[in-house]
Amino acid sequence: MKQIKIFSPATVANVSCGFDCLGFAVNNLGDTMTFTKTSNKGVKITGIKGANLPYDSEKNVASAVTLLMLEKHPVDFGIDISIEKGYAPGSGLGSSAASAAGAAFAINELLNRPFTQLELTKFAMYGEKIACGSAIADNVAAAIYGGFILVQQYEPLSIVKIPVPKELMLVAIHPQVKVRTKDAREVLPEKVLLTDAVTQWANVGGLISGLYSENYEVIANSLKDIIVEPVRKHLIPHFDLVKEVAINSGALSAGISGSGPTIFALCKGEEIAKNVYDAIENSYKDKGIDFTMVYSKINTEGVKILEQN
Amino acid sequence: MKQIKIFSPATVANVSCGFDCLGFAVNNLGDTMTFTKTSNKGVKITGIKGANLPYDSEKNVASAVTLLMLEKHPVDFGIDISIEKGYAPGSGLGSSAASAAGAAFAINELLNRPFTQLELTKFAMYGEKIACGSAIADNVAAAIYGGFILVQQYEPLSIVKIPVPKELMLVAIHPQVKVRTKDAREVLPEKVLLTDAVTQWANVGGLISGLYSENYEVIANSLKDIIVEPVRKHLIPHFDLVKEVAINSGALSAGISGSGPTIFALCKGEEIAKNVYDAIENSYKDKGIDFTMVYSKINTEGVKILEQN
Repeated sequence: MKQIKIFSPATVANVSCGFDCLGFAVNNLGDTMTFTKTSNKGVKITGIKGANLPYDSEKNVASAVTLLMLEKHPVDFGIDISIEKGYAPGSGLGSSAASAAGAAFAINELLNRPFTQLELTKFAMYGEKIACGSAIADNVAAAIYGGFILVQQYEPLSIVKIPVPKELMLVAIHPQVKVRTKDAREVLPEKVLLTDAVTQWANVGGLISGLYSENYEVIANSLKDIIVEPVRKHLIPHFDLVKEVAINSGALSAGISGSGPTIFALCKGEEIAKNVYDAIENSYKDKGIDFTMVYSKINTEGVKILEQN
Repeated sequence: MKQIKIFSPATVANVSCGFDCLGFAVNNLGDTMTFTKTSNKGVKITGIKGANLPYDSEKNVASAVTLLMLEKHPVDFGIDISIEKGYAPGSGLGSSAASAAGAAFAINELLNRPFTQLELTKFAMYGEKIACGSAIADNVAAAIYGGFILVQQYEPLSIVKIPVPKELMLVAIHPQVKVRTKDAREVLPEKVLLTDAVTQWANVGGLISGLYSENYEVIANSLKDIIVEPVRKHLIPHFDLVKEVAINSGALSAGISGSGPTIFALCKGEEIAKNVYDAIENSYKDKGIDFTMVYSKINTEGVKILEQN
């Protein structure tokens, strides 16, 4: 193989009660990336469309991940990388994770698959570290594995793939405001009430059970975050309104995607998802804030090959 | 039907990371209870074997639950109740819950099943309130539903039944020491670190996933309690030793049953469970503390009818 073109999906992390451990991948939104073997050694970013990202190989997430992989698996060729960002960085939909996971997956293909999915996740986590300072796994694992993933533990890393109920749909709105990672972190409490923690982990248990059993009522009951959402929602204009509108038009629930500002809603079936989409759009259009929206099935396959030759 | 004799299982609550929300029922340990219709109205405890429990109908858990049910569903007959406790109260294996759940189930049968399992759980929770001051659901729900149950939320009560992996076995040791509920509560921290809470709920997610997917490795990885066990284990003599011995002889993990003093270990398969049983027994027999042990499959059917006529 000389060249591979892949699609790497956007991802929703911090799925309500599953703060810092539960994520899922999105079908209709992501990065398209092309990786080409070259006779000159070295890793080069040859083009970036759709976002203002670094060309420096050490600083660009995709090339940084590639360099790390080639350290572990040296080769006698170079690699050119071109990236088409399908959505804006800073949305809370795992933009850096899509690039990092896409690079890890594609390089593994170019090298004839020396690495496992778990190893690819670890390489991609290095990309997250470059991008945002900490090697978080939930977005990159969701992009690599597809579907819902649980980061069950970090040391050693254990990723558990959770089934996706067939009719589950995502609606998301990205208000064009900036939520600084620093602000999103600073509002987090250092400690929480044990009783609140119990409520939250009972909901995590319920959510995982609902996903396995395709019990949408249990999913809806469990999609709650009583710990992080209450302190972060103020960073996102009209969060409460969007959540209320989503639930009133039939969504199972809604929450903050990653650390925002994107708000996601999960729905049972296309018809309800369309209603929720329209209702959220209507509720937001007079707010004086630009926004984009997405409507999508849950991506179950993760990063995928578009072309190879 | 004039008379019904039932078996109501012992239960393990606070299953490691699932503190205050996850429980399961035990096959080989529980109460045998007989409920007989009488022509004199009123509810009477006619016999109690195996434990020193109140005969006062308002104070005995089984009759108190019966009285509450008859308030909601008046009848023109009375009920005599006799109880054979199969194991000691105060063990941490849901002794009061077994009596409460047994009564709720049996009375529902005598009344021709007017109530749902969820309603029976609520009646039995009243028994828990009588016995220990708070209407907790995890033991009684496990006894009524059988298998693993998750108390997903209290308001309104939502009980989720979780599948039981076929080879899962329980080994438990009950050291004959008293852990006062008051002491077990007082050591609980009011607040916990958010990072610890995240670790705990990722384990809850992993445990539920492992139970659905029969993935014993994920179950073993997730059966951890970094919040409650560290502060409660000092109330149970040689807890660390028993846990270490259990894991070293092949148990998936071990933890505190309820608020103790019983220590439970979960194992994959009978052979390992027997090894774990022997190893725990050997480790404890020179400690100068009397103890009983149990070895059992997980009970998947809940309270069951032994005889009716």
